[in-house]
Amino acid sequence: MTAGSTALHTDRYELTMLDAALKDGTAHRRCVFELFGRRLSAGRRFGVVAGTGRLLELIEDFRFGEDELRFLRDERVVDAATLTFLEGYRFTGSISGYREGEAYFPGSPILTVEGTFAEAVVLETLALSVLNHDSAIATAAARMSIAAGERPLAEMGSRRAGEESAIAAARAAYITGFNATSNLEAGRRWGLPTMGTAAHAWTLLHDTEEDAFRSQVDALGTGTTLLIDTYDIQEGVALAIRVAGTGLGGVRIDSGDLPTVAAQVRTQLDELGATGTKITVTSDLDEYAIAALAASPVDSYGVGTSVVTGSGTPTAGMVYKLVAREDSVGGWVPVAKASLDKGSTGGRKAAFRTLERGTATSELIAVSDGFEEVATGAQHPDARALQVRLVADGEPDAAFTGPSGVRAAREHHAFVREELPVRALALSRSDPALPTVYIDVA
Amino acid sequence: MTAGSTALHTDRYELTMLDAALKDGTAHRRCVFELFGRRLSAGRRFGVVAGTGRLLELIEDFRFGEDELRFLRDERVVDAATLTFLEGYRFTGSISGYREGEAYFPGSPILTVEGTFAEAVVLETLALSVLNHDSAIATAAARMSIAAGERPLAEMGSRRAGEESAIAAARAAYITGFNATSNLEAGRRWGLPTMGTAAHAWTLLHDTEEDAFRSQVDALGTGTTLLIDTYDIQEGVALAIRVAGTGLGGVRIDSGDLPTVAAQVRTQLDELGATGTKITVTSDLDEYAIAALAASPVDSYGVGTSVVTGSGTPTAGMVYKLVAREDSVGGWVPVAKASLDKGSTGGRKAAFRTLERGTATSELIAVSDGFEEVATGAQHPDARALQVRLVADGEPDAAFTGPSGVRAAREHHAFVREELPVRALALSRSDPALPTVYIDVA
Repeated sequence: MTAGSTALHTDRYELTMLDAALKDGTAHRRCVFELFGRRLSAGRRFGVVAGTGRLLELIEDFRFGEDELRFLRDERVVDAATLTFLEGYRFTGSISGYREGEAYFPGSPILTVEGTFAEAVVLETLALSVLNHDSAIATAAARMSIAAGERPLAEMGSRRAGEESAIAAARAAYITGFNATSNLEAGRRWGLPTMGTAAHAWTLLHDTEEDAFRSQVDALGTGTTLLIDTYDIQEGVALAIRVAGTGLGGVRIDSGDLPTVAAQVRTQLDELGATGTKITVTSDLDEYAIAALAASPVDSYGVGTSVVTGSGTPTAGMVYKLVAREDSVGGWVPVAKASLDKGSTGGRKAAFRTLERGTATSELIAVSDGFEEVATGAQHPDARALQVRLVADGEPDAAFTGPSGVRAAREHHAFVREELPVRALALSRSDPALPTVYIDVA
Repeated sequence: MTAGSTALHTDRYELTMLDAALKDGTAHRRCVFELFGRRLSAGRRFGVVAGTGRLLELIEDFRFGEDELRFLRDERVVDAATLTFLEGYRFTGSISGYREGEAYFPGSPILTVEGTFAEAVVLETLALSVLNHDSAIATAAARMSIAAGERPLAEMGSRRAGEESAIAAARAAYITGFNATSNLEAGRRWGLPTMGTAAHAWTLLHDTEEDAFRSQVDALGTGTTLLIDTYDIQEGVALAIRVAGTGLGGVRIDSGDLPTVAAQVRTQLDELGATGTKITVTSDLDEYAIAALAASPVDSYGVGTSVVTGSGTPTAGMVYKLVAREDSVGGWVPVAKASLDKGSTGGRKAAFRTLERGTATSELIAVSDGFEEVATGAQHPDARALQVRLVADGEPDAAFTGPSGVRAAREHHAFVREELPVRALALSRSDPALPTVYIDVA
């Protein structure tokens, strides 16, 4: 349990609050925590939920083994009674929420976590770490996928992200429409297609560019992609075709003014008879650069830094808030923080996307004062219910985890994007593409 | 070996290049790879190297076990001969470079990796992932530490970063002057001091704010810090002192216009006689907000999103380039990519920080055409040599790893910052505080 335990991916205050709540008896009050975003960052028109499947697996490993308990004891983080509680800790509550790949808007109840205060409060940091990171990547990646249209996109940004976040980023990008990743661990762990070409080091390793190209073609076949900008692009292209023939699979351009260079390279390839040789470009692309290349003779894109860093928004800004709890006599009360700039809406929520002729028109959130399931489907027959049960009595639904969960999320995202109004797909800064509408069903 | 293997934190092209190089014999050419940044991002005046100690440990786990080999075989990433090579892979070369916590400038040779092409090329992604992430955080955190002056800083951003990057971020922030982290795993793994207060959920869990405060004080003592902005700040402060007495340790403010609110809270606390109660603020702080609070009666800062996302620069943009290699007759040649916008300087390098009366004046980089150690200390008696041996014959120097490596890096960073010129410490955008000067010693 120790090597894989996620139990200390936790802010200290969660355990000190638990400690105090065990002393005063409130630890066992049943609670509803909600994970949501107050706004979309950077004028994005929609957000994309990602990380859910990862989170469900990490929650299964949220157990306090000997090493975790020893650390907490040695550091005097909590007292002996709390250590005993943690030793037996296992999340036994339920989690419902948006499917991975779903679009979200300000206030969307992305996750609803129900359980005792004790078992739900300790998941705050882990849940937010995973959802905030992965959703930020997915939201940016979806925009790149929209900009790329039918042209394939590869995620190649591992080197610009922490070594584990890189894998999560590859996964999130794949869910939102990227076709492959350069990261082998992402391939192994999540079943993503992997791809690659060659680095400048490959050319520099050899005595001549010709040696490098010849060796690569010998080893990998003429279907390979040659990197042609180590020295001079025009000479590189000529050499590539001389070495590989007009059946060369592709060339990669990693520098220069891409619209200009891509056009020159395409003309040169065509003149050499290599009309089937593809052009892939990989230099500092983001959604805007991809869109600017739409009219250029580019066949595929490789995206690095901008996708793994969320294209300017590396975290989604979601929060995890107590929205309802049991009172001292067993009733239910909605609760909310009052601060003007950081307020939240108390009460358990049910969320629907209203549709008109198949196109989404609003994010409808039904707020219940109590703890009972709120159901408004009957009131809005054209609305699609957005929440599914992800964890029941502590058991995650296997449909959402592992590589099959990733494939399902990718399919769901494609479905969701079809449903969004056209204005959601523009890249410029704007308000959210759908209004969030609250209705009170208490 | 499998669970902890880092061998697939690798871009696919590294292994396909290895595959081709094993076929043409260049895999065994001795090579020098260099990890460096072409520029400082976002007008920063200096960068801070971080992640080195983590990387050395991850390289020790860079071994291909059964699971890794099976994946590569099943996916046909490489051929059988390459699989056999990888099965016996272990990095046996050497790595020298900047100490963790050191300042860096454009072109600084942060790491120099020497070995065969085969053993060095495969470390590209892992080395860049770790150094780019951790150095981006450290560079931003150093600016926050400068802005905070003598006031304590806590890192509380785990929820805004991927769950493993969060721990690396806590570590990088501590190296550059943060005093503590909220992340318990960072405490366990790297020996960092951990801290925490309470969340709004704590107050909302209880029937009244008074119940919440009383319970927290009962459990954690009057030295605790009470979060006073769940409902009304003025009432929260009055209640906090009524419950805890004038000996209350601290209050935390997490919303509102902080300079105004902090001044009001200080006045109120003093009027109530709680002159020793500290004020900690935690709402969306970055280096500029911290600087703007310098004249406010704030005792400590908690920083979240901005530090774990590099305050607008979540990755450091470093690259890993082949700079010298053996030629076909056993001689050494410097190599470099020619592209105008992404060129690099070939040859092995030695780096020094020149000093005048104890203040740094330049980053002096001696470029050698050959492979021999370049040594210019004698030519510049006031220069401090910046590179140390981190890995010798595949063995990392234990002085740089583990919790003791973190403490050493923190001390080294404090020393380095004292040496920087005053202009390096300003927050506004500018050129690098030191010029990079190349000299040719071939």
